[in-house]
Amino acid sequence: MKVLYTGSFDPITCGHLDLIKRCANKFDEVVVTIFNNKSKKHWFTGEERYELVKEAVKDLDNVSVDITEGMVVSYCKKNNINMIVRGLRAVSDYEYELSVSSINRHLDRDLETFFLVASPEYSFISSSIVKEVSEFGGEFRDLVPANVVEAILKKIGR
Amino acid sequence: MKVLYTGSFDPITCGHLDLIKRCANKFDEVVVTIFNNKSKKHWFTGEERYELVKEAVKDLDNVSVDITEGMVVSYCKKNNINMIVRGLRAVSDYEYELSVSSINRHLDRDLETFFLVASPEYSFISSSIVKEVSEFGGEFRDLVPANVVEAILKKIGR
Amino acid sequence: MKVLYTGSFDPITCGHLDLIKRCANKFDEVVVTIFNNKSKKHWFTGEERYELVKEAVKDLDNVSVDITEGMVVSYCKKNNINMIVRGLRAVSDYEYELSVSSINRHLDRDLETFFLVASPEYSFISSSIVKEVSEFGGEFRDLVPANVVEAILKKIGR
Amino acid sequence: MKVLYTGSFDPITCGHLDLIKRCANKFDEVVVTIFNNKSKKHWFTGEERYELVKEAVKDLDNVSVDITEGMVVSYCKKNNINMIVRGLRAVSDYEYELSVSSINRHLDRDLETFFLVASPEYSFISSSIVKEVSEFGGEFRDLVPANVVEAILKKIGR
Amino acid sequence: MKVLYTGSFDPITCGHLDLIKRCANKFDEVVVTIFNNKSKKHWFTGEERYELVKEAVKDLDNVSVDITEGMVVSYCKKNNINMIVRGLRAVSDYEYELSVSSINRHLDRDLETFFLVASPEYSFISSSIVKEVSEFGGEFRDLVPANVVEAILKKIGR
Amino acid sequence: MKVLYTGSFDPITCGHLDLIKRCANKFDEVVVTIFNNKSKKHWFTGEERYELVKEAVKDLDNVSVDITEGMVVSYCKKNNINMIVRGLRAVSDYEYELSVSSINRHLDRDLETFFLVASPEYSFISSSIVKEVSEFGGEFRDLVPANVVEAILKKIGR
Repeated sequence: MKVLYTGSFDPITCGHLDLIKRCANKFDEVVVTIFNNKSKKHWFTGEERYELVKEAVKDLDNVSVDITEGMVVSYCKKNNINMIVRGLRAVSDYEYELSVSSINRHLDRDLETFFLVASPEYSFISSSIVKEVSEFGGEFRDLVPANVVEAILKKIGR
Repeated sequence: MKVLYTGSFDPITCGHLDLIKRCANKFDEVVVTIFNNKSKKHWFTGEERYELVKEAVKDLDNVSVDITEGMVVSYCKKNNINMIVRGLRAVSDYEYELSVSSINRHLDRDLETFFLVASPEYSFISSSIVKEVSEFGGEFRDLVPANVVEAILKKIGR
Repeated sequence: MKVLYTGSFDPITCGHLDLIKRCANKFDEVVVTIFNNKSKKHWFTGEERYELVKEAVKDLDNVSVDITEGMVVSYCKKNNINMIVRGLRAVSDYEYELSVSSINRHLDRDLETFFLVASPEYSFISSSIVKEVSEFGGEFRDLVPANVVEAILKKIGR
Repeated sequence: MKVLYTGSFDPITCGHLDLIKRCANKFDEVVVTIFNNKSKKHWFTGEERYELVKEAVKDLDNVSVDITEGMVVSYCKKNNINMIVRGLRAVSDYEYELSVSSINRHLDRDLETFFLVASPEYSFISSSIVKEVSEFGGEFRDLVPANVVEAILKKIGR
Repeated sequence: MKVLYTGSFDPITCGHLDLIKRCANKFDEVVVTIFNNKSKKHWFTGEERYELVKEAVKDLDNVSVDITEGMVVSYCKKNNINMIVRGLRAVSDYEYELSVSSINRHLDRDLETFFLVASPEYSFISSSIVKEVSEFGGEFRDLVPANVVEAILKKIGR
Repeated sequence: MKVLYTGSFDPITCGHLDLIKRCANKFDEVVVTIFNNKSKKHWFTGEERYELVKEAVKDLDNVSVDITEGMVVSYCKKNNINMIVRGLRAVSDYEYELSVSSINRHLDRDLETFFLVASPEYSFISSSIVKEVSEFGGEFRDLVPANVVEAILKKIGR
């Protein structure tokens, strides 16, 4: 059974990695795909984000990494995937995700989205909080995987 | 009894149309008014949106269409309207709408806002989802009225 | 145009009365109906609640009061009503009301429920808070109509 | 891959059945287990509910039915299950389910709960709404599987 | 500055204790008061709960323990307290607490309620979850203070 | 005891002022600090906002005003503050604030955030609603302190 886990991963955090590991532990194959929305401004380039995710998951045998653009529904059809896994934190997440999963099922009746609750210890971490904390000189070392710590330090010139 | 139903309608969806029909079924007169916020970027111009709404509601005898700028409260005073109808989908809608309706009543104690729950089958449709789906080549024909389908096909050059 | 406003009214509060006045100000006729769920325990008997509501609305010419049992949908059909008005306070209200309004429309496609937001100054008042405050000897005189103040004082033996 | 779907199923509704079918379509094996909380009052006895569920899913080859008491965590351990699927409707569902899934993972780090969003057309159906509607003489035939319709008709003596 | 922290504490959990410690770290004096609602059924008697709380906080010098009945507002007036601290976990907590704090300020304009967010690692713990887990034979030793573990073991006869 | 109350205050409203007064009534010292996020566009310059806040609180002896950039956590450390007070209105506020308070405590275990519920009569006021109402010519005199009324009139050229 193959599942898709998507995001911008700008950058990948310990919260993302926790979810990927939990999926890898349950499903035969986990495809982690960076959806690169070109109209959005990113901190790391698509290629950088791809390399950071790839390095972060390199010890997980059944996890592969990809980067793409466009709609999730088309990507799934092309790659023969019919299960998506999404992480949930707050109620506001939930409502947005719920409507996206409904529209995806409307477009492809067979495409299901399963939600997984973030582990409490990671529930307040997001890519944007990592960026904000590191830009203002706060401590971010326990919020992201080790390889991302280095990439951020280089980026902010410390 | 005259009620106002407002929006950007960029473009009008089957969800909007369902609400307009349900209001037209209950009230003597329904005024559908496009509030054209010039600081927001739109897909369709004000005039295009006006024509799309007008065509979509042309079979409903007690529905008229208008386009304006500015504040809802002033528009209502000028047009002798003291009831607004708004559609509700998610909890996040609800909170925003609740605070807008409170400020409107603060500005004009006699101006009431009534909320109507979206029909389940339309609850996940919004103008922005229609745009996203159609731009990425997904199927949008059952999300908008027939005349809007054509306008979108022309716009995206299919 | 005739609308229905329902509740247990155990007892009627200033929040209920505010909503009734706002409806009476907009619609031709407002029917205030006590739904007497016999499996629920009440503070005041059905008859007492009926008298308290009747007295509280006696100056509103287009408001009538009724008491019944059973389903709202059947009551509406029998009484030729196809619009219900409900007050909203918190998000939890909203979700419950939303699902009830959906099931009612499922049972009778023509039966619409309109929601009205409680005025901020009444948003924290409910019948159960009135009961709790008065039973513990707190000040409740500004939470309920004058005639209900007396009924409560008699009930709690002050 | 084996997943567990639990509930009181008092009685099983079309919403439950939709979720079971969607799971059966994705996972190798779906175990539908009635958790019979003896301190709660039920409409149908445990045995009746078991028979109603069994009949409703009889055409789904990879679905089995069970009935038990006690904690989900212990049941999963005994039956070698480490994935639970739960349906989500409202935000209030979500918060309760989120805390139950966290406590379950606290008790067994390997036990994951996946959430699936109810199809819009079933989002307002629940066992308690079915009971209420049928007890008051409303139309419930499209809310429950055919075999449950008969069981309810017998129960309410129509 | 003296603050009040209240609850049923049936029994006190690690989540409660975390909040009490955080308050004791900030305010001169923390009064932990068990509100013993006699119409609610409890697991532990009022006296038992009082002893369990007292033992759990015995190392915190500026924390005192009390037990009472009635309204929080009257208790505060009698004890010269005008600040309450409440813990928040989910959105549903928040709405209930918000309305209680508003009614309390309505009754005594000077009585303020401050909310503190539960630490992520305790956010899923509640007294009722502790009861449920321990009654069904699950592991509860890291959910409650050491002295409560013993009391529960005795109660459930293990 | 010293507490921090922060915001953009673009401009300060009656809702902000109500919270500041309530804090000044409870704590020894209240520091009101404008966090001037330079990447955000403001209506009033940082200096203007500083002067407007300063004038609005000039009768409150234990309130001081400051303006800064950067992270709240660093500001608190430098100024020897370990308590933040935040106002809460809607559920959406609550979730955002909850995650910010968790990340702040993650960065400094000793930095606590206390939440205070907006008074019902101010619950629908925000700086952005004040801007919108005044720009469209609506009545805003009871939404902001007297000195801010004048500043807005000058700004919008009335």
